[in-house]
Amino acid sequence: MSKPILHGAILSPYVRKVRVALSEKGIDYEGVSVMPGSQSAEYRAKSPLGKIPCYQEGDFALPDSSAILAYLERAYPKPALYPSDPQQYARALWYEEYADTKIAQVCTVGFFQRFVQAILMKKPVDEEAIRKALTEDAPPVFDYLEKELSDREFLAGGQFSVADIATASFFVNMEHAGDRVDASRWPRLTDYLARIHGRPSYKAIIEQEKAAIGR
Amino acid sequence: MSKPILHGAILSPYVRKVRVALSEKGIDYEGVSVMPGSQSAEYRAKSPLGKIPCYQEGDFALPDSSAILAYLERAYPKPALYPSDPQQYARALWYEEYADTKIAQVCTVGFFQRFVQAILMKKPVDEEAIRKALTEDAPPVFDYLEKELSDREFLAGGQFSVADIATASFFVNMEHAGDRVDASRWPRLTDYLARIHGRPSYKAIIEQEKAAIGR
Repeated sequence: MSKPILHGAILSPYVRKVRVALSEKGIDYEGVSVMPGSQSAEYRAKSPLGKIPCYQEGDFALPDSSAILAYLERAYPKPALYPSDPQQYARALWYEEYADTKIAQVCTVGFFQRFVQAILMKKPVDEEAIRKALTEDAPPVFDYLEKELSDREFLAGGQFSVADIATASFFVNMEHAGDRVDASRWPRLTDYLARIHGRPSYKAIIEQEKAAIGR
Repeated sequence: MSKPILHGAILSPYVRKVRVALSEKGIDYEGVSVMPGSQSAEYRAKSPLGKIPCYQEGDFALPDSSAILAYLERAYPKPALYPSDPQQYARALWYEEYADTKIAQVCTVGFFQRFVQAILMKKPVDEEAIRKALTEDAPPVFDYLEKELSDREFLAGGQFSVADIATASFFVNMEHAGDRVDASRWPRLTDYLARIHGRPSYKAIIEQEKAAIGR
């Protein structure tokens, strides 16, 4: 069988989720560059909304990072990236959803402004949008994560899971944009992110991304 | 054990997803009325974004309809509402995601305007928004569903699944608002919706909703 193909752009937090999962599971794949919102009819046949990532094995094409992670778990069960206990499994899915929507909203504004708007679209940076995201919108989200983490090593089920893959991914974009979580205000979240981003899977991917953006 | 509790409002398409799944699995539960966007601190401790539905068993509280359906499948496996084949399982998750985001966007505008805006918020109905949703935004979505359905009875894996639960739910809101899919233009989608909405689970829930809104 030829290698699976991952369509997307490496700086996308949703593509990164899949790349980390593939790395954790030791699945070799080929990356094909696609920008979000692609209008290509060929790509839209695989990913009807033009979104990235889209994962492909032969004729089987699957968009949506959460669906892809769930597929990988069924097709390549080891190592498990979802807790086996039903309630912890469900909590992991909730944290993934929270990350994909709410954390995404507060952590990717700086990246969007400084990379997508300024560099790709040649538009002025909306500094006020960045300030509002970091100082008004993000703190309640960070407070929630700090409370949920408590003294836990991982978010759900005592094991590294999709909850951690998703949560940590959006903070990579925040760091690419030059922003950091205030360690004095959110010490557990800071330690947690260092721990997750320090895993071999995440570490290699972040280093590769930094090289791509000249950091 | 006391009955599970489902927090939410019966006309919400996301709450309906959970109600249909609970009905299909024969799980008895207690409904507690919560409106979306609740600011109650007690409710936010269960559902941090104030969203509905939130499902509760004792101390275990779980927001997000997709996470809830996944939990119910693990905790109450029979009858299965997800295909067992990994690729078909993943396709079902994709259709669920497509429904929860894209179908939601095009099918609930009339309901939002005529019920939430006009009746709950006492604001004027934006007829142009409804017209645009039905005549410009919806047709490509209905075309996609028509093509995906082809001559299939269900969307994924040859069985009734979360794909059908989610897809059909948003069309209930469209029908509550008085709008229908054009059967001459989308005959397969029309037949499919009649088939899914005609299942005992969906039928009883739709009848109860119609009674609640005086239809």
